[in-house]
Amino acid sequence: MIDVAIMGHGVVGSGVAEILINHKDRISKRVKEEVNVKYILDLRSFEDLAYSEKFVKDFNVILNDDSVKVVAEVMGGINPAYDFVKKCLTAGKSVVTSNKELVAAKGAELIKIASDNNVNFLFEASVGGGIPVLRPMVQCLSANQIDEIWGILNGTTNFILNKMIVDNMDFDTALKLAQDLGFAEKNPAADIEGHDACRKICILSALAFGKHVYPEQVKTKGISQISLDDVTYADSFGYVIKLIGHAKKLNNGKITADVSPTLVSRDSILSGVNGVFNCIMINGDQTGEVAFYGKGAGKEATASAVVADIMDCIKHIPARKYLYWEDGDETFVDTAYDNYGKLYILLKAENFASVLNQFQNLFPDCKQVIKNEFTKEIAFITEPDYESVIKNKLSQFTDIKSIKTLKTLA
Amino acid sequence: MIDVAIMGHGVVGSGVAEILINHKDRISKRVKEEVNVKYILDLRSFEDLAYSEKFVKDFNVILNDDSVKVVAEVMGGINPAYDFVKKCLTAGKSVVTSNKELVAAKGAELIKIASDNNVNFLFEASVGGGIPVLRPMVQCLSANQIDEIWGILNGTTNFILNKMIVDNMDFDTALKLAQDLGFAEKNPAADIEGHDACRKICILSALAFGKHVYPEQVKTKGISQISLDDVTYADSFGYVIKLIGHAKKLNNGKITADVSPTLVSRDSILSGVNGVFNCIMINGDQTGEVAFYGKGAGKEATASAVVADIMDCIKHIPARKYLYWEDGDETFVDTAYDNYGKLYILLKAENFASVLNQFQNLFPDCKQVIKNEFTKEIAFITEPDYESVIKNKLSQFTDIKSIKTLKTLA
Repeated sequence: MIDVAIMGHGVVGSGVAEILINHKDRISKRVKEEVNVKYILDLRSFEDLAYSEKFVKDFNVILNDDSVKVVAEVMGGINPAYDFVKKCLTAGKSVVTSNKELVAAKGAELIKIASDNNVNFLFEASVGGGIPVLRPMVQCLSANQIDEIWGILNGTTNFILNKMIVDNMDFDTALKLAQDLGFAEKNPAADIEGHDACRKICILSALAFGKHVYPEQVKTKGISQISLDDVTYADSFGYVIKLIGHAKKLNNGKITADVSPTLVSRDSILSGVNGVFNCIMINGDQTGEVAFYGKGAGKEATASAVVADIMDCIKHIPARKYLYWEDGDETFVDTAYDNYGKLYILLKAENFASVLNQFQNLFPDCKQVIKNEFTKEIAFITEPDYESVIKNKLSQFTDIKSIKTLKTLA
Repeated sequence: MIDVAIMGHGVVGSGVAEILINHKDRISKRVKEEVNVKYILDLRSFEDLAYSEKFVKDFNVILNDDSVKVVAEVMGGINPAYDFVKKCLTAGKSVVTSNKELVAAKGAELIKIASDNNVNFLFEASVGGGIPVLRPMVQCLSANQIDEIWGILNGTTNFILNKMIVDNMDFDTALKLAQDLGFAEKNPAADIEGHDACRKICILSALAFGKHVYPEQVKTKGISQISLDDVTYADSFGYVIKLIGHAKKLNNGKITADVSPTLVSRDSILSGVNGVFNCIMINGDQTGEVAFYGKGAGKEATASAVVADIMDCIKHIPARKYLYWEDGDETFVDTAYDNYGKLYILLKAENFASVLNQFQNLFPDCKQVIKNEFTKEIAFITEPDYESVIKNKLSQFTDIKSIKTLKTLA
């Protein structure tokens, strides 16, 4: 018999407890060991639950019980999760987590501690919820050098953008709906400002490229500035707007990483990823493009990924999994990388005739353009060029009220 | 140092040799062992190759060399691959293969022999080429009960159908183009008659549902009867035609499995899978729908999946991976399963007025219908019903020249 502890009984934690308890036979059969939930750590009381006797309020009960071999950290946040996880690993317990904030901030250190103590630290659920992506990337694509990773990493923003695109709902109404449906939190900043997607691209980059990438190193832009007009212009040009996390290995050995609202061509399968679904694309030098698609969040999906990691830990006592990256450094991420591609531009003019004239001089080759004299707007997709070149041209405009710039993806 | 042998130096085999030899450092570093290709088995001579000294023509050289711990079988076909693989496993060598025909026919037996000899038998490359799907299904979704699997499993047929849909090319021209481009073989039957997709759904079903499913138990229909008219009618109804492999767990404990050209709704992400790409969808009771997308064939993609399996075998000497299914039996697959859903029907009339009249009597509720008096055709999508009920209605038509029936997928 293997004793397991669950730290946290929120949405994901209660899901983990329910799967481990309700499907105990199925799971025990698959790992060829009886899997027993011994403790659940939560400050709240849950007296009505059938498994209420498992709850403890003191972390040390778990830490000091040597029979507990695997601990699931599903509390979220850095503190006290970071401290608890470190102590568990140091005490020789394997830890699995769904906590992307923790992994993105402290992954390299925790992996090192796990390695030093010959235990596992697994975190499949931290990216893509129930979508298998980290393990396939490490194991199945192990013969590849991964060149690039990109995709839809946050279900909440994808739901909101989708409502704007399909139902012509404005941003505020779509956000409100997402909150009412439980897809967005009361304070939605982590999702809509792109921080959640940023943490996930950090984790993916670290695993793919071998060094920790810190959230502060990733240029991160959320979706709150996207208007229904942008959605409509994008549609006319053959694109839909998605929040895309992206990371690429550069020829100089560095990487570039960013999170940006991006115009995605209707030819890309990413354009068909709707609602709260996520889709992560990976390009390997041997296998080309592969994609992983599914629900990026949700109680059962995320909990099932946590449970799969617990099962993997149990099967790998005492062997260790190959999941590793080095500590990061200041030079690994090229934060000044000058991307080459097409940009979507929305110019709002003070003086339409003047701006139109300047536009025709500065962007004479532009093939996709909409000129709206009534709203004094010019929306266009540039020809491919370096971002610095395009932005330099944009800086020359006069008689202008505002300029909005978004990336595009073929 | 670990010695490895490759049996077969065709498209995939030469790819495996090239990756293992050209990227030896990268691969050895990742498995923490020097990986050495000791033998390549092929009856042909390759004297111009830099690694020509590795070639042997006698299988017994590999079998009798105890230093060879892992063997890649990339010859294809059942014979002599079956015999060779059995002997290697019995001799205590792990075997990896890309040979779907072998795994679909003899998987349960070979897994059993591997297990009895405490070695591994891995075959990630047999389904989806370079797309990670078998391992994620077994490992990452291990907390799930898998209910259903479906998808585009054959790149050649998807390329042909795509050319028909996008370029209005007829079937024969598209097949010829696929052959010219090297996507289809001179004898294309295995692809276009659905046998290749059938083998893959057998392997996926066996892994997901725990018992061997034999190709003969899977109702298999190819794409050679699909005409440009069908493509056009499907388009009018909001669908594209794809060759879909499908398997589902039934409430009676049995499963149903089939391979059929299917009208796929434009709302499904499968409708956006173009060219030689594959996409496998899996529904788990906890995680919901997940999908795996990428190139389903091609030298480098498939070879990289074989190499990843070799690396996994090396990391798991002498431990064994959990990859298992039981032998199949006659009752496991419900071959008489009566599917419930919408069907696409194309009626060609001898007497149009008469057939139209019968149609209106037999399918009065039909909402999607195209009546073509000139070609004497009626194309329609039925309301959802049991296939037996719809086919019973169809059997009542008189004055009819032909009736074509295709499944639909929402």
